[in-house]
Amino acid sequence: MTAVYDVTTFVSPSSTSPYTDIGTVINEIMADIHATQSTQSTRPGAVIYIPPGHYDLLTRAVIDRSYIQIKGSGHGFMSNAIRDDEGHNTSGWFEIEPGGSHIRVKNTDGNSEAFIVQRSGAPTSVGRINGVEFRDFCLDGVTGSRPYLPGSGKIGISFASDNDSVRVEGMGFVYLSRAVRLFGADASYVINNFIGECGMGIEYVGGAIVPRVQDNTIVCPWAGHSIYIENCQGALVTGNLMVWHGSVKFVNCSRSSITANRFNSEWPGQIELDDNCSQILISGNQLYREGLYHLDSTGPHDDLFGMMHLRGNGHTVTGNHLGFDIGSTAIRPSGAQPTFILVASGSDDVIANNHIVTATAGKVVLDSSVVNLKLIYTTFGAGQLTAHSGAGYAVVHLP
Amino acid sequence: MTAVYDVTTFVSPSSTSPYTDIGTVINEIMADIHATQSTQSTRPGAVIYIPPGHYDLLTRAVIDRSYIQIKGSGHGFMSNAIRDDEGHNTSGWFEIEPGGSHIRVKNTDGNSEAFIVQRSGAPTSVGRINGVEFRDFCLDGVTGSRPYLPGSGKIGISFASDNDSVRVEGMGFVYLSRAVRLFGADASYVINNFIGECGMGIEYVGGAIVPRVQDNTIVCPWAGHSIYIENCQGALVTGNLMVWHGSVKFVNCSRSSITANRFNSEWPGQIELDDNCSQILISGNQLYREGLYHLDSTGPHDDLFGMMHLRGNGHTVTGNHLGFDIGSTAIRPSGAQPTFILVASGSDDVIANNHIVTATAGKVVLDSSVVNLKLIYTTFGAGQLTAHSGAGYAVVHLP
Amino acid sequence: MTAVYDVTTFVSPSSTSPYTDIGTVINEIMADIHATQSTQSTRPGAVIYIPPGHYDLLTRAVIDRSYIQIKGSGHGFMSNAIRDDEGHNTSGWFEIEPGGSHIRVKNTDGNSEAFIVQRSGAPTSVGRINGVEFRDFCLDGVTGSRPYLPGSGKIGISFASDNDSVRVEGMGFVYLSRAVRLFGADASYVINNFIGECGMGIEYVGGAIVPRVQDNTIVCPWAGHSIYIENCQGALVTGNLMVWHGSVKFVNCSRSSITANRFNSEWPGQIELDDNCSQILISGNQLYREGLYHLDSTGPHDDLFGMMHLRGNGHTVTGNHLGFDIGSTAIRPSGAQPTFILVASGSDDVIANNHIVTATAGKVVLDSSVVNLKLIYTTFGAGQLTAHSGAGYAVVHLP
Repeated sequence: MTAVYDVTTFVSPSSTSPYTDIGTVINEIMADIHATQSTQSTRPGAVIYIPPGHYDLLTRAVIDRSYIQIKGSGHGFMSNAIRDDEGHNTSGWFEIEPGGSHIRVKNTDGNSEAFIVQRSGAPTSVGRINGVEFRDFCLDGVTGSRPYLPGSGKIGISFASDNDSVRVEGMGFVYLSRAVRLFGADASYVINNFIGECGMGIEYVGGAIVPRVQDNTIVCPWAGHSIYIENCQGALVTGNLMVWHGSVKFVNCSRSSITANRFNSEWPGQIELDDNCSQILISGNQLYREGLYHLDSTGPHDDLFGMMHLRGNGHTVTGNHLGFDIGSTAIRPSGAQPTFILVASGSDDVIANNHIVTATAGKVVLDSSVVNLKLIYTTFGAGQLTAHSGAGYAVVHLP
Repeated sequence: MTAVYDVTTFVSPSSTSPYTDIGTVINEIMADIHATQSTQSTRPGAVIYIPPGHYDLLTRAVIDRSYIQIKGSGHGFMSNAIRDDEGHNTSGWFEIEPGGSHIRVKNTDGNSEAFIVQRSGAPTSVGRINGVEFRDFCLDGVTGSRPYLPGSGKIGISFASDNDSVRVEGMGFVYLSRAVRLFGADASYVINNFIGECGMGIEYVGGAIVPRVQDNTIVCPWAGHSIYIENCQGALVTGNLMVWHGSVKFVNCSRSSITANRFNSEWPGQIELDDNCSQILISGNQLYREGLYHLDSTGPHDDLFGMMHLRGNGHTVTGNHLGFDIGSTAIRPSGAQPTFILVASGSDDVIANNHIVTATAGKVVLDSSVVNLKLIYTTFGAGQLTAHSGAGYAVVHLP
Repeated sequence: MTAVYDVTTFVSPSSTSPYTDIGTVINEIMADIHATQSTQSTRPGAVIYIPPGHYDLLTRAVIDRSYIQIKGSGHGFMSNAIRDDEGHNTSGWFEIEPGGSHIRVKNTDGNSEAFIVQRSGAPTSVGRINGVEFRDFCLDGVTGSRPYLPGSGKIGISFASDNDSVRVEGMGFVYLSRAVRLFGADASYVINNFIGECGMGIEYVGGAIVPRVQDNTIVCPWAGHSIYIENCQGALVTGNLMVWHGSVKFVNCSRSSITANRFNSEWPGQIELDDNCSQILISGNQLYREGLYHLDSTGPHDDLFGMMHLRGNGHTVTGNHLGFDIGSTAIRPSGAQPTFILVASGSDDVIANNHIVTATAGKVVLDSSVVNLKLIYTTFGAGQLTAHSGAGYAVVHLP
């Protein structure tokens, strides 16, 4: 019995070539693992290796065992748009597709996911999956018309039932509606990935504890978020480098950190916390609001929404740099002063020692419902602060 | 000559199966390396590969050459307790053990370590070992009654003589007294590991320079520390995510950083510096003191010890978030006001721009011996500060 | 067709041994890739694997295709000087060379690079190379007399034409003039490397966006910089641990971050920004100026240059720890008070909540040309600040 499989040398029972449908081949490998790892204490899992090559995926691959490591030899990221945003003829290019261990996600089986990690069982602990890993290969939704819009539907990897200590590391994702979606993921690592032109980059749903979203480079547009996390405690979002619409949204998250990230965005809403968030630490981030794209592609928010849009209680926002550099004619609504930080609700936040550098006069805005906010060394005098009537706050302006 | 060994295909001189005793097989591989790499300039080291599988280790493996990389294909972490803390019957589970490249540490040879990295020689530079790496496998002390208590004695990996540029990366550790112990380790990397239910997580002893302890997820209880470092200069402790008793202790360390970590703890003492520490930078950390466990399992300290317990000189404590959320009935000693930060001794610290969010009235406390402390924008008025008579300090309260 | 090559098993058309000249063997593998991956859409790239061993490189290896992953099994770093700085006889040592997958860079072909990644084509997008990766091997310039001086000329890896999403990860570099040099590199990862005794550690030239320079350990002397980046937007320099002359220099960079690094240096100039830099976030760094080396090896700057030497506009310098610990007799020019932070020009910087701990009286100095600087909670009273006549600033001293 071997626990190391290679998709190009595995003898497919159905004689399917991995180049024709790697999904079928992986499902057949999983069936072999089911057959050979047949008792509770003989299930160490396996490696499924994908050598460099161009593979089509017609059938969704289903991973329903713990400790399966699906591994390639290269994230192979390429986006034609990023490579050549002037739209030259590509006939002279050496490569016109992503590469490395490259899977073209072409599901013809009616499913939207390239990979689904899922197992049923009651209570939940029966089904719970541990230690599945995806490393160093490329999931390519195949170029099309704005494939990153939510409607196009393709998902790279979906963790769809409760899981623990899974990893998505060193992968490339391009042209997908959703790159990575994790449901019920405890102590997960999503690190060191390259995600480009996907509608949603990294998405946690259904609740999780201590997820780690770290050191990813994410190039996503306005239709979704670079990183979206809901119902989570103890998230560590750090070292991510986000471009185009660098955007992190937390919904009902607590005691989590957004630190040392770098955000580039053409749209408002780089950091957004909802009403049920509490005690989020936002520190050491570099936020840059640039460009004109939002006039063409309006996105959900105007410039009154804030680069940071904060709701909830007990947050700490410190040591961040905010740069706002679009001309006044690009601001929506036309003629408005842009909002850099909007505290839209909540109590007991401390916002201290952030530095706002702007080419256009703008504001930190406190909603009338705000209670016991401390705003310290973030604003250059009263002209940069709008506190609506009723807001409870104390301020120390920069001298 | 090959320098790539696979424990499952290596022809053991003693006909030992790696599944029966992987320690003996690895020691035999080391003997082969001694035989084949026989001169000073023909010693590049080797890879020892452990494919996915369940392996027993009866005999301690001894690594006494530089540049040995011991590598598996999956950290395979699972803890039954974490998977199901309600203690359901496991008869319906698919897997009941950790997996991946999974080693059950069952030493029957009288030694406590699964792996020891050690070489003698005088002066020390003769014996000094470089570049040994442990990557992507699982060391499992095998479940038992509170195996993480110090008395149980099992150690995952011990670097026991002077070494340089070693790595422990992407490993899983479970049910060990000590997961990783490093003696005399210069410029080491202990990164990206998953350590659960071990008495001590990562432990540096004997002195070291510039260790990197980064991006680990550590779930250790009160009996030890998540991370313990002594006699060290220039440590970088960053990006670690610690649960249960998230705890970092420094003894006689200088000019080191504890940044961007996330601490969950059921007990006091998340960050502890001793009298001989100097110039430690503590910034961007998220600390959360929760729960009731400490009433059952008391641990060494009561709630007057501090979430941060600081001694020594010249520290910088800035931009941290501290959340304290246990009911007043759970506080020890009963009826006391808890201490969030205790400056127990030392001079010339700056504690600035930290945010304490608490469900219970509590204190920042300065010992009478404190000299020239600056406490800035950390406390909400005098009611939150207790400075014992004689303490030398200046304070700027939050407005 | 395989896309996985091993330099030790590849049948060299010229019968060259990889131990004699691995450069020729890699070039022959590249020729095979050219022959077998012959159309625009059949070019996934390949893995070129280098098992542990000592290899000589006489001929420069040229990588001119995307998605080539050159991978070893061990960074193998060793420096004799670091191992034994007392200069004992090495006759008793077990290993006297670096190891792992170890390449001795001995170019006899007139080139200075061990590896060059380069492809021509017009417009630039035609030649642009994606996703080339170097991982887990050692490039050793071979010891000599101060091989790290710029004049010695050897370069480890040079990315010499426009490229995207390349990686240099987990490598060892020793005794080179330049370890890694990147021209026109977008969204690159240079992470987790070990660079010792090289003149220049990591060097970006020609312009780039969103480079990631992270988690490297760099031991370079005064002749160059640990990290040098020019003409770049959105750099993330984080988690690096730098010794000897820990030094980061930015030239014409904007909206970038230098966070959570650790600098040890024997010379002034740990962080240097030029006049064309803007909006750099410097936070959470630990800087230590120590030692006496600079009296022997003077380096370019005296102690009036500053541990931080800042020019340009709109920077945010917050939450850093600066430790200065050389005796007054070691300061140059003799008798001078050292400068900790020099703001040499520029406008609109905020320098807040940094903590300077010093064994010798010294200064924060503001040039007369400085405009609208905010200096907050960084200086201990007027005695520690020198603002030249004409400097525009506001200060809040530590209380």
